[in-house]
Amino acid sequence: MAYLVDGSIRVAVLGASGFSGGELIRLLHDHPQFEVTFAGAKGSAGMTVGASHPHLAGLPAAGLVMAEPDPEAIAAAADLVFSALPNGTSAALAPAILDAGAPVIDLAGDFRLPAEAYPSWYGFEHPAPAWLDEAVYGLPELFRDRVPGAKLVANPGCFATAAIMSCAPIFAAGLVEPTVVRVDGKTGVSGAGRAALESTSFGATEDSIRPYRLPAHQHTPEIERGIELATGRRVRALFVPHLVPAVRGVVTTSYLSATTGVTTEQLTDCLAAAYDGEPFVRVLAPGAMADAKRTRGTNLIELQAVADPRTGTAVVVGAVDNLVKGAAGQAIQNANLLSGIEERTALPTTAVYP
Amino acid sequence: MAYLVDGSIRVAVLGASGFSGGELIRLLHDHPQFEVTFAGAKGSAGMTVGASHPHLAGLPAAGLVMAEPDPEAIAAAADLVFSALPNGTSAALAPAILDAGAPVIDLAGDFRLPAEAYPSWYGFEHPAPAWLDEAVYGLPELFRDRVPGAKLVANPGCFATAAIMSCAPIFAAGLVEPTVVRVDGKTGVSGAGRAALESTSFGATEDSIRPYRLPAHQHTPEIERGIELATGRRVRALFVPHLVPAVRGVVTTSYLSATTGVTTEQLTDCLAAAYDGEPFVRVLAPGAMADAKRTRGTNLIELQAVADPRTGTAVVVGAVDNLVKGAAGQAIQNANLLSGIEERTALPTTAVYP
Amino acid sequence: MAYLVDGSIRVAVLGASGFSGGELIRLLHDHPQFEVTFAGAKGSAGMTVGASHPHLAGLPAAGLVMAEPDPEAIAAAADLVFSALPNGTSAALAPAILDAGAPVIDLAGDFRLPAEAYPSWYGFEHPAPAWLDEAVYGLPELFRDRVPGAKLVANPGCFATAAIMSCAPIFAAGLVEPTVVRVDGKTGVSGAGRAALESTSFGATEDSIRPYRLPAHQHTPEIERGIELATGRRVRALFVPHLVPAVRGVVTTSYLSATTGVTTEQLTDCLAAAYDGEPFVRVLAPGAMADAKRTRGTNLIELQAVADPRTGTAVVVGAVDNLVKGAAGQAIQNANLLSGIEERTALPTTAVYP
Amino acid sequence: MAYLVDGSIRVAVLGASGFSGGELIRLLHDHPQFEVTFAGAKGSAGMTVGASHPHLAGLPAAGLVMAEPDPEAIAAAADLVFSALPNGTSAALAPAILDAGAPVIDLAGDFRLPAEAYPSWYGFEHPAPAWLDEAVYGLPELFRDRVPGAKLVANPGCFATAAIMSCAPIFAAGLVEPTVVRVDGKTGVSGAGRAALESTSFGATEDSIRPYRLPAHQHTPEIERGIELATGRRVRALFVPHLVPAVRGVVTTSYLSATTGVTTEQLTDCLAAAYDGEPFVRVLAPGAMADAKRTRGTNLIELQAVADPRTGTAVVVGAVDNLVKGAAGQAIQNANLLSGIEERTALPTTAVYP
Repeated sequence: MAYLVDGSIRVAVLGASGFSGGELIRLLHDHPQFEVTFAGAKGSAGMTVGASHPHLAGLPAAGLVMAEPDPEAIAAAADLVFSALPNGTSAALAPAILDAGAPVIDLAGDFRLPAEAYPSWYGFEHPAPAWLDEAVYGLPELFRDRVPGAKLVANPGCFATAAIMSCAPIFAAGLVEPTVVRVDGKTGVSGAGRAALESTSFGATEDSIRPYRLPAHQHTPEIERGIELATGRRVRALFVPHLVPAVRGVVTTSYLSATTGVTTEQLTDCLAAAYDGEPFVRVLAPGAMADAKRTRGTNLIELQAVADPRTGTAVVVGAVDNLVKGAAGQAIQNANLLSGIEERTALPTTAVYP
Repeated sequence: MAYLVDGSIRVAVLGASGFSGGELIRLLHDHPQFEVTFAGAKGSAGMTVGASHPHLAGLPAAGLVMAEPDPEAIAAAADLVFSALPNGTSAALAPAILDAGAPVIDLAGDFRLPAEAYPSWYGFEHPAPAWLDEAVYGLPELFRDRVPGAKLVANPGCFATAAIMSCAPIFAAGLVEPTVVRVDGKTGVSGAGRAALESTSFGATEDSIRPYRLPAHQHTPEIERGIELATGRRVRALFVPHLVPAVRGVVTTSYLSATTGVTTEQLTDCLAAAYDGEPFVRVLAPGAMADAKRTRGTNLIELQAVADPRTGTAVVVGAVDNLVKGAAGQAIQNANLLSGIEERTALPTTAVYP
Repeated sequence: MAYLVDGSIRVAVLGASGFSGGELIRLLHDHPQFEVTFAGAKGSAGMTVGASHPHLAGLPAAGLVMAEPDPEAIAAAADLVFSALPNGTSAALAPAILDAGAPVIDLAGDFRLPAEAYPSWYGFEHPAPAWLDEAVYGLPELFRDRVPGAKLVANPGCFATAAIMSCAPIFAAGLVEPTVVRVDGKTGVSGAGRAALESTSFGATEDSIRPYRLPAHQHTPEIERGIELATGRRVRALFVPHLVPAVRGVVTTSYLSATTGVTTEQLTDCLAAAYDGEPFVRVLAPGAMADAKRTRGTNLIELQAVADPRTGTAVVVGAVDNLVKGAAGQAIQNANLLSGIEERTALPTTAVYP
Repeated sequence: MAYLVDGSIRVAVLGASGFSGGELIRLLHDHPQFEVTFAGAKGSAGMTVGASHPHLAGLPAAGLVMAEPDPEAIAAAADLVFSALPNGTSAALAPAILDAGAPVIDLAGDFRLPAEAYPSWYGFEHPAPAWLDEAVYGLPELFRDRVPGAKLVANPGCFATAAIMSCAPIFAAGLVEPTVVRVDGKTGVSGAGRAALESTSFGATEDSIRPYRLPAHQHTPEIERGIELATGRRVRALFVPHLVPAVRGVVTTSYLSATTGVTTEQLTDCLAAAYDGEPFVRVLAPGAMADAKRTRGTNLIELQAVADPRTGTAVVVGAVDNLVKGAAGQAIQNANLLSGIEERTALPTTAVYP
């Protein structure tokens, strides 16, 4: 791209006051080529990034005053745009930015599904269906080749990332029936965003374990579509998310109908082969257990597979940090690919533990 | 029973130094007819109950010196015995107590399965298989009539309680295929017991979400057997437990293959009818979400059912406090039934919240 | 009082939708003489208690529809009024209720200080200064005799309860200089109330340890006044509260200037003597450490004293559950005293642990 | 030093299996000049670093087999030694390593005090008192000039770091009486180390707030000595640590007797001037509150000062991550200084938040 000539790429972060926006700014600070030159926010416009995120105090980007996300101003200020605005906002905003010439990586769900899915799963009529065909589903480990040159990247949802990466290779290899997948999800509260809610208050969350948005979570059709894109197989997904007392961390446990005789070793080998050489994928050996805590703050996914011949089930567990591999980290991974930059740039792979 | 003549029943608590033992003593303090007269423990013998459990300071039972669990001493000191000893311990101990005349309620897994299941699921050859036929599986809401007069009660496991109570009525009503149930479990750390382990340390648990003992948790055959006892149907269970950063609380999410056309309302009505009038069962209306936190410290189970016609699945969520309905509380419920005492005696139904 | 004639006392709970209101209703359910007949709330008027507090489902009071707190309706419906309305609300409301004949126990700070303190510490001019002289400071262990017959009880704040009970006997005994006390407080989030705030969200609270409202927390003058009421000594207090990642629990660590030669044993003996026979006070032996967790859900206070001759300091640690001994429990203790009922009625003293 | 010639410095990490050891290895991975070539451990010898710390899987150092810490082998394998062995271990081990020619940075308390202090505060007679005079107390912001060229660096304790950095400039400026400082500490569980203990289990820690090791914590004389080294003033310290339900994070709240008329602004200005230009010190403006969470995973300290004229108190709050600025991070900061490397190398200053 043209902007690569001078080696410095100006990026905008929209939704800068939220958790994903804060993560984008934190991670981008360590990026040698991307420089945050525009911070957009709706409710917090006028505030600096540092005032909104005191933990970012001292970074150059902390001094940016967040502005209402005006498409022309954004395209003038930035060569590349990350949008972490709420669901439904970027569908309306991104086309004008794209028309003004800046590629957009959308962290919301606004460009992940076909147009007809939006009314029922997201509750709105999509305002820019033509762009849905242009959008690339940015799950690099499965669709890496599609990202360079894309104008619009739909950055996957956190649960969908874990579930699709868990299941796609297994479906593709024919180790399970291509019919139904049942995904049991567990997540910390940060997936619900930064806005103060009683349901994610400390008081309501400590020692709480509970399902939510059952059975119509909007990641359901995304899981189906991602598997279809990756494998050509149209399967039905059931997705049942649960909230647990954690801040970060998503674990999906996917239940698939195994074909006769499938073993844990076969499932594990299948995943290991599919993700061989991937810098952000850790396929665990049989017997080792995935743990969201080991992915915290990183762009890693941990995958674990087990066959249960007693019930004819293949179980695949996927664990990610919902704000990194499940949001801001994967968005930067896509931006690196889009811009011809080494894919791993600015993406941690070692968790702060404990 | 003879000991009812004078209105006061002497009870022994074995495994008094553990979490379930502590809960038994705490709850029994509010019982007008049971009096703890013997506290048994192996590692902590010689210590008082109060020294082991400082939160119980001030209760009369806090002054009891814990003794090695000698069967004759126990039977001499108590009319009824609660055994919260580790798996494998009461199988060896209970017969001698029973022979000495005291009924036993065993909170371990030692009397819940047929003899042939022990080597593979529990890792030991059962030393007293004859007693396995005598043992009553003490899940009162399903098997209430069998408890009065029983000599030996196998108190159900926490996960098994939630899963069996979730599924049995649904299977019995024929709303699902009687083939396989896949149970995804989530639990706080107290289910792992009181012994200090790195895996349940605060450092390893905060922000950790992870499966464990996959796929061979010993509650698997218990779930199968409980469903068979309740419904006559032999189904296969897969059980995948996960640890989450909570102290108390177990949630099971059971996935069943629904027969065509089954609705959320049918599932809910089925559960509501099955547990009509039950003092410890809260069947939630469609749309309400179960929460382990609302059962904390109580003998309640919350049940929630949802049909997903897209995938032909019936989902039933069950939530209990693993140390109360999942252990000590249900044991007292059984003891009340065994002794002809009002079943609800000394069993809280309102959680301390938040 | 007249209403004792028939053995049943109708009580109103104002602020029923908050945490303290929920605790009052929970605890009062186990009270044989008090019956909740009126639930008042401002924002949630029209909602039932059970809808606001799902954990209270099933209690008779759960069916009460919360009403705007109208003084005449309250006085007509109740013989005794608990007000857990926010600071500044009951100062305006209570006089009319009192005039209508019902005694009031106020859980807010509205009747704890002299009139002149309100503008600077609470930010409002007190609307009913005459009632401030009538109000009894309801810390039963120090002022038990004043409560029976009182019309208006100012129920102490959580931090103030812990700090005053820690220090008053030590000051009274002359073991420390009657000049200054520095109180370092630590609290869980429930003290901030039920309203959803970013600062008490799970995301902001996990692994957060931080001071707040420094150095002008409104419990400062209350600590000073409570010590003066109890000992006649006018000392100055500094109070520095900190938020820690807990739901319930307040610990105050009070630093006093010890007179020469004072020992840990003397301090401990002083506290033990002062609270001898008190059912809710647990003075710990030298070497034992106070723990808020052991008071959770109970009306207990744990007290621990240590002398440090190296710096001439007497340290007294006090731990309470801020919603029970620090709010609803102490209010019921006061109501029992006010009504001539056994003081311990409906007040737990054994924590659910762990 | 000679080893700088070739631009690569071989380092040993002793105590590699513990939390501080794990942090050293994690942080050193991002260091361009230090390479971990030796991992020492006592209990876990024979295990690889990666097996002990699964979150470090994939790092080159994860493949190191941990060895018993033999001084000659260590000195042969490494140019510089970090010792994170338990208190009392490195006092015996370090002299032989030093004699063999490798400088040592000791993260334990073994070289922080004068010889006569060890029996009473640490419970052992110091085996190498001559080295105590050689040891430099490695708090760079106060003693930076002493570190380059040092053979033995005593890396400060976590609480001591926060308390000394809070108080030394205030004492030096004469804003408080140079007599006594009372330090109230709050810490997460990781300060207690990685060994599984009931007291730091998740069950015992959730909702627990409690003092410990009162009043004789071994950081007491270290605080006194650090202040004396920095200011020449011999003051007495009282240190009262508390455990709160966090993993990382230490907050010290220091109470000092202010001289007349001292204001919050003066205290703040004093700290700001003392730490002007320091890359790891964040002095907060009046009204802002320190938060341990914002230092998590970083080498930062947040400092906040408040004057309370009512009681003549200066309050200074210091917050650090006990495993980074309070241990491994500060050790690397010292190693950078010792080796003539840019002090900030490999030391994060932006927290992963929330």
